[in-house]
Amino acid sequence: MSIEATVLEIATAARAAGQRMAQVSTNQKNQALVTLADHLETEAEQIFSANLGDVKQAEKNGLSAAMIDRLKVTEATISAMANGLREVAALSDPVGALTESCQRPNGLQVSRVRVPLGVIGIIYESRPNVTVDAAGLCLKAGNAVILRGGSEAIHSNRALADLITASLTASGLPGSAVQVIPVTDRAAVTTLLAQEPFVDLIIPRGGEGLIRFVVSNSKIPVLKHYKGVCHVFVDENADLAMAEEICFNAKVQRPGVCNAMETLLVHQDVADAFLPKMGQHFKDAGVTIKGCDKTRRLLSWAEEAKEADWPTEYLDLILAVRVVDDIDQAMAHIATFGSNHTEVIVTQNYARARRFVQAVDASAVMVNASTRFNDGGQLGLGAEIGISTSKLHAYGPMGLTELTTTKFVVFGDGQVRTA
Amino acid sequence: MSIEATVLEIATAARAAGQRMAQVSTNQKNQALVTLADHLETEAEQIFSANLGDVKQAEKNGLSAAMIDRLKVTEATISAMANGLREVAALSDPVGALTESCQRPNGLQVSRVRVPLGVIGIIYESRPNVTVDAAGLCLKAGNAVILRGGSEAIHSNRALADLITASLTASGLPGSAVQVIPVTDRAAVTTLLAQEPFVDLIIPRGGEGLIRFVVSNSKIPVLKHYKGVCHVFVDENADLAMAEEICFNAKVQRPGVCNAMETLLVHQDVADAFLPKMGQHFKDAGVTIKGCDKTRRLLSWAEEAKEADWPTEYLDLILAVRVVDDIDQAMAHIATFGSNHTEVIVTQNYARARRFVQAVDASAVMVNASTRFNDGGQLGLGAEIGISTSKLHAYGPMGLTELTTTKFVVFGDGQVRTA
Repeated sequence: MSIEATVLEIATAARAAGQRMAQVSTNQKNQALVTLADHLETEAEQIFSANLGDVKQAEKNGLSAAMIDRLKVTEATISAMANGLREVAALSDPVGALTESCQRPNGLQVSRVRVPLGVIGIIYESRPNVTVDAAGLCLKAGNAVILRGGSEAIHSNRALADLITASLTASGLPGSAVQVIPVTDRAAVTTLLAQEPFVDLIIPRGGEGLIRFVVSNSKIPVLKHYKGVCHVFVDENADLAMAEEICFNAKVQRPGVCNAMETLLVHQDVADAFLPKMGQHFKDAGVTIKGCDKTRRLLSWAEEAKEADWPTEYLDLILAVRVVDDIDQAMAHIATFGSNHTEVIVTQNYARARRFVQAVDASAVMVNASTRFNDGGQLGLGAEIGISTSKLHAYGPMGLTELTTTKFVVFGDGQVRTA
Repeated sequence: MSIEATVLEIATAARAAGQRMAQVSTNQKNQALVTLADHLETEAEQIFSANLGDVKQAEKNGLSAAMIDRLKVTEATISAMANGLREVAALSDPVGALTESCQRPNGLQVSRVRVPLGVIGIIYESRPNVTVDAAGLCLKAGNAVILRGGSEAIHSNRALADLITASLTASGLPGSAVQVIPVTDRAAVTTLLAQEPFVDLIIPRGGEGLIRFVVSNSKIPVLKHYKGVCHVFVDENADLAMAEEICFNAKVQRPGVCNAMETLLVHQDVADAFLPKMGQHFKDAGVTIKGCDKTRRLLSWAEEAKEADWPTEYLDLILAVRVVDDIDQAMAHIATFGSNHTEVIVTQNYARARRFVQAVDASAVMVNASTRFNDGGQLGLGAEIGISTSKLHAYGPMGLTELTTTKFVVFGDGQVRTA
């Protein structure tokens, strides 16, 4: 069968499965998730053996140690996947909730009711746990899923998909509610991105290159973020001890993720009091500083920040630092170089806190807290399938609710329209 | 200046204007809308004269009478635009509302706050009133707008844009919050669709060809519907007098719009009692019927429905009619040929009403009411900028709220993340 025919067959089966999934009870969905969690633990050997095939191939192909590490499925990966599924099963089901309702003057009762999106395509890179994590969230929200993982994880992903299908059918749900595209050719991706009648949403997860490829080629709506260039602005009225803790946490606690701080902006009036101590703290933790001229006057050991540093997502123990004149210059810097991801002000000043929160355009704007809190779990969504920095449908972390939409339901008694 | 440079200049100016618009008060926005309404009435001659130029050119180019009719701006068009703006000014402002809020275990206060989308591009065909109607709604929701109307209306649109700019600046708002692309070349559209960093949403309004072109070429999210193939299913337990009123209204009251009924599905057990009288009623109103075999046994004068009729949006006094075995066959027909727009069941049976409402996937699903009610004004949104049949962001009529999004706002006291 051609790649086109294979993908079309998967997409049409997904549409049919999605129609059934929209009708099943919360109990059935939860049962499938818990069954899958159990299967993962009892059938772990099967997954390890498939994964070993991928890892050996990756080693043969000379993939980097970091990539091979991301590819590996360990006992800990299995536990994390299984427990994640049990947590999703415990979350409340968004489907069926009535979000708004009114009675019209002519007696029509108009409501908006939460319904699944339908079919969701996930395009991702090496980590096989995405197969289970993403499938679990999409299923709980009543959707069918088409998964297209990296070619280097194909054996692991197929083995996981077999377990998922078995758990679905054992719970009376359509097995094709979760399907893995078995073709590793990139043409399978472009074909999937053209299945507009059968797929309602595409979520790409991976590097900026993958995401730009998906956005450029998709006729289907895409939810994504390109990168996280997150700032912390230490205002003149900041509690400097608090600022130091927040900045250190934002940069160092987990530097390789999108909600880590990449640029620190410091008000000129507190630069002398703040930067030398903060800088030493960073230096001791192995952070390389790329500073503006004013920063380097205070931190002689810092490297020079070039224009190209300001929009850069380092994802590493590297930090750009700029001393700014005031909040206006800080906000202008953020508007120019930020990525609409996470922006923080540290201040004890009411008016400036309020101004920053209102004027800064980002999926999460925070006062006196670490950038690291921009995460579905931390913000109370229960779990997340990713973070969106485009504004349509979802802006910020996407949880179960963001995997649904609402339809209008109208109850009448024979009303007709006269104008 | 090249087309690319012109569009880029407009897009960057729109982004800057959008950042200012997000901060202005509701009073200022309302004042601009009311000022524009007044200007439209006092400066109507200016609009008529520009419009006359477009109409003369259209006549010279041999455009159809229907197209020229859509192009014409009359006293009535001016009044409708002005009153529409006053109605939008009277609607409550969605911006700034807190939609959700929680206190996290670590003391963080997490909220979602409604904010404007930013910059909206509207791509439309001949009607010049869209220039004012769409701009008014986008502005009220705090957005900047880029308008790209049909080339045949370019003089009218420019004259309207001049009035809009004058009203904005008179109210202290940025004049470039509304801009009309002055280039009629189609390359201006493709260039606009590539301005991802500066434009947050594209709304195309027009025929299916225009919309497919936009979806295929846009890197920016698009909200749209391709067509409205709306069904009414007359169930075996329908009140047949009510069914006749609803069906007649759905087809005849305004056949040229997307929420008119295009296919009537009748349960076989009531076909004998319902179709002859209903058919005569339609015939008297000049409706052409294209029926299945069973329909034609009851309506000998009906034409034969071909397979191609079922997915067709006639937008005219033409109706496809099919007699179905039961609600399952009706719902299967709708799932196959419907366009996720508006679907109606007429029934007095509780269980089937409930089943239809739950299982049918459309932006509006109705019981015992005319399809014609799928409209922002009729469903209580106040006004609408269009109807979306894709499920992302908005499913159904889009009002002011759908021209906004929410961002997370987090207030802390120095919280950092430990895991």
